[in-house]
Amino acid sequence: MPKPGMFNFVNKATWDARNALGSLPKETDRKNYVDLVSSLSSSSEALSQGKRGADEKAQESKDILVTSEDGITKITFNRPTKKNAISFQMYLDIMHALKNASTDNSVITVFTGTGDYYSSGNDLKNLINDAGEIQDVVATSTKILREFVNCFIDFPKPLVAVVNGPAVGIAVTILALFDAVFASDRATFHTPFSQLSQFPEACSTYMFPKIMGPTKAAEMLLFGKKLTAREAWAQGLVTEVFPESTFETEVWTRLKTYAKLPPNVMRISKELIRKHEKQKLYTVNAEKCAAALERMPREEYAKALRNFLFRKAKAKL
Amino acid sequence: MPKPGMFNFVNKATWDARNALGSLPKETDRKNYVDLVSSLSSSSEALSQGKRGADEKAQESKDILVTSEDGITKITFNRPTKKNAISFQMYLDIMHALKNASTDNSVITVFTGTGDYYSSGNDLKNLINDAGEIQDVVATSTKILREFVNCFIDFPKPLVAVVNGPAVGIAVTILALFDAVFASDRATFHTPFSQLSQFPEACSTYMFPKIMGPTKAAEMLLFGKKLTAREAWAQGLVTEVFPESTFETEVWTRLKTYAKLPPNVMRISKELIRKHEKQKLYTVNAEKCAAALERMPREEYAKALRNFLFRKAKAKL
Amino acid sequence: MPKPGMFNFVNKATWDARNALGSLPKETDRKNYVDLVSSLSSSSEALSQGKRGADEKAQESKDILVTSEDGITKITFNRPTKKNAISFQMYLDIMHALKNASTDNSVITVFTGTGDYYSSGNDLKNLINDAGEIQDVVATSTKILREFVNCFIDFPKPLVAVVNGPAVGIAVTILALFDAVFASDRATFHTPFSQLSQFPEACSTYMFPKIMGPTKAAEMLLFGKKLTAREAWAQGLVTEVFPESTFETEVWTRLKTYAKLPPNVMRISKELIRKHEKQKLYTVNAEKCAAALERMPREEYAKALRNFLFRKAKAKL
Repeated sequence: MPKPGMFNFVNKATWDARNALGSLPKETDRKNYVDLVSSLSSSSEALSQGKRGADEKAQESKDILVTSEDGITKITFNRPTKKNAISFQMYLDIMHALKNASTDNSVITVFTGTGDYYSSGNDLKNLINDAGEIQDVVATSTKILREFVNCFIDFPKPLVAVVNGPAVGIAVTILALFDAVFASDRATFHTPFSQLSQFPEACSTYMFPKIMGPTKAAEMLLFGKKLTAREAWAQGLVTEVFPESTFETEVWTRLKTYAKLPPNVMRISKELIRKHEKQKLYTVNAEKCAAALERMPREEYAKALRNFLFRKAKAKL
Repeated sequence: MPKPGMFNFVNKATWDARNALGSLPKETDRKNYVDLVSSLSSSSEALSQGKRGADEKAQESKDILVTSEDGITKITFNRPTKKNAISFQMYLDIMHALKNASTDNSVITVFTGTGDYYSSGNDLKNLINDAGEIQDVVATSTKILREFVNCFIDFPKPLVAVVNGPAVGIAVTILALFDAVFASDRATFHTPFSQLSQFPEACSTYMFPKIMGPTKAAEMLLFGKKLTAREAWAQGLVTEVFPESTFETEVWTRLKTYAKLPPNVMRISKELIRKHEKQKLYTVNAEKCAAALERMPREEYAKALRNFLFRKAKAKL
Repeated sequence: MPKPGMFNFVNKATWDARNALGSLPKETDRKNYVDLVSSLSSSSEALSQGKRGADEKAQESKDILVTSEDGITKITFNRPTKKNAISFQMYLDIMHALKNASTDNSVITVFTGTGDYYSSGNDLKNLINDAGEIQDVVATSTKILREFVNCFIDFPKPLVAVVNGPAVGIAVTILALFDAVFASDRATFHTPFSQLSQFPEACSTYMFPKIMGPTKAAEMLLFGKKLTAREAWAQGLVTEVFPESTFETEVWTRLKTYAKLPPNVMRISKELIRKHEKQKLYTVNAEKCAAALERMPREEYAKALRNFLFRKAKAKL
């Protein structure tokens, strides 16, 4: 089954970008570019090789791993060859895992990633329909995204992110609904929504200005500034940054200590904190999705995605 | 009159903890442990030696000192042998002092502590009834705490904390209702609510996430992370940190300058700032107290307090 | 036409302050003092030489420059001999420029200043009536200020401040309504409202505590603490600080990149961010103006302005 739309689009973008490589001034830009193209290409390859549908059974998925030990439920983005990009199936698996974790006997729930990335965010293949064409991403994503975000608003136990590497898009915005975010100093935080003609989701239009003030929130959400771990810490998105060399040891030692605190007390304290925001978060989440659905400038989308690739390759900054 | 309940409890915890001392890895952990046990013990001793009741006359109390000079009313936690822990009588004395300061001719009101500590927070003897047993702390504390916090919500003049040393519990949470917090670099900020099976009070479930973002607030309020002065500054809880050697001189020079600014203008400006939050703060304060009263997992309390001591002694972190 | 009231006031203050110069301990204090007096004096001179009225035609004003290039509308405070102080005419010119920029084909709108200052804020001559006397500043300013601030609340495109030097008063408070604030490391941020017996405007009583927490907001808004660029960054008011030597180059390179992002997407994203606050900001802006109008302690004003000058000259801090 041919997928000419997206396939051609990606090939074209890849070709454009590779031709532009000669003008890349710095090693990091070259690396960023290669990462980006390979991320797009791999989505495309995945489509060619046979895609995983949303009807696939949750228990067969290994892209999300769930384990439980020492009072800690650990949910791992486990798709390192795709930089832990989140497919529709993975959204469903995560919701399923959160529902289980909310009632099992674990004390704390932790997210982390396998390999170099924490998660590169929404899988670009989610933006492509069965014919391989760029589809109405908002219509397709709205319902699942709204339910996904509500699971985080509702989660009743302490929720911790162990950000082992770069985080992109919804993997960043959803952090504002966590209770602690521990980051390796090699983690980065990138929300290139405008670059991709998309809108900030996961209540970030409300939570980011609240956390970091409007001028820092807008640089992330409007202009797509990529933050280092230390910048994200200074802006209040990250609880603490650890050197990569001791990151896993220090964080898990601390988490095991936290998991021994009285569970009921922490649940009630979290509820006392969250209740001030809960109704507002539901409303923002619903409005955001509805507003995006109505107002998405669809014709700008393909152009922006193409520009994103091309500009990225030529960026001097 | 024997006080077997609490006395035995403290003795047991002390014994458990002292036995565990051999495994303490670092000097600081050993010191933390000794501080904690001696703080508990001294409360217990105070009970043995005759307690101060809430009916004691305010003017006889010397645990809270109130002075007025240079346009500044100074309220001092003055119970250094108990690390300036706040007894019921001291809550009443502070409310009395704030009511006076709100209408006298002083311009600024300042809190500070005598000795090494700013204040170790709620006196543990407040948690023990006349029989020396761990009592229903929430029922006893709810009314006084609510009135106490409302005094800070309502206080009409600039309110400044001069944090000369460690602050614990309510001495930390109430800071979110101050207009400036100046800290010595030897101050620390510790809110071990979960460790003691208690809940964050003084509107901190609302104010802390607002000030420092949810991920930093939760590490303090859910997990009881102790902050250095500089960390508390970076998170927005502290206005400025000064070296211990010049702390008193620098801060009081600055405060005397501030006290010469036009009083009515500062009162109105403070009112313009506070009015956006006032109704919400009343509500949070009332709800928090009611919720805690209803939902306190009482049976977890004694266990948690015992665990706190024991775990503290063994903590590797 | 003689203007004895203000003229005499300024002359008296200048004389008082010059006599006090001998006791100025530090070079910076001396410089601050000279800046302040010359700023006052120049306002007075402007009055003597013939003032610019609010009825002057917008298109004749050169105190506000508006240019458009590379998708960026640039609005420049262009009155360097008066430290870019904002006259009534300049308020009107800015509102006019913002209305145009909101519908033209530019992508981003940027404010900056000509010369050493970004802007020294509200021109003191706005506080003086035709007879040269200190007038009821609040009554005169209320309407124009409310409309001015509403223009910033409503502005639909990304709004960026390029703060090239010191910013004072409303030039600082209005920054909380911007989407990005880039500052040279020689910029400072000063809101001496209490010193001048005025009240914090431009929704700062609401936005500053939200951005930086109440204890840091109050030190600026109640006590008039002047911040360095780095302090303003740490408190969340400034997005990023650049060395003066590379400031213009780095910032404008970045802004040109941002101006190439999809305009409609950024407009909608900004709307999604702003909508959570919009109604509240209108209300605060209106209430603030009304409250100030009713409650301004008029008799304190002249005394405070005189004290400000005199104290400044003698300040040891």
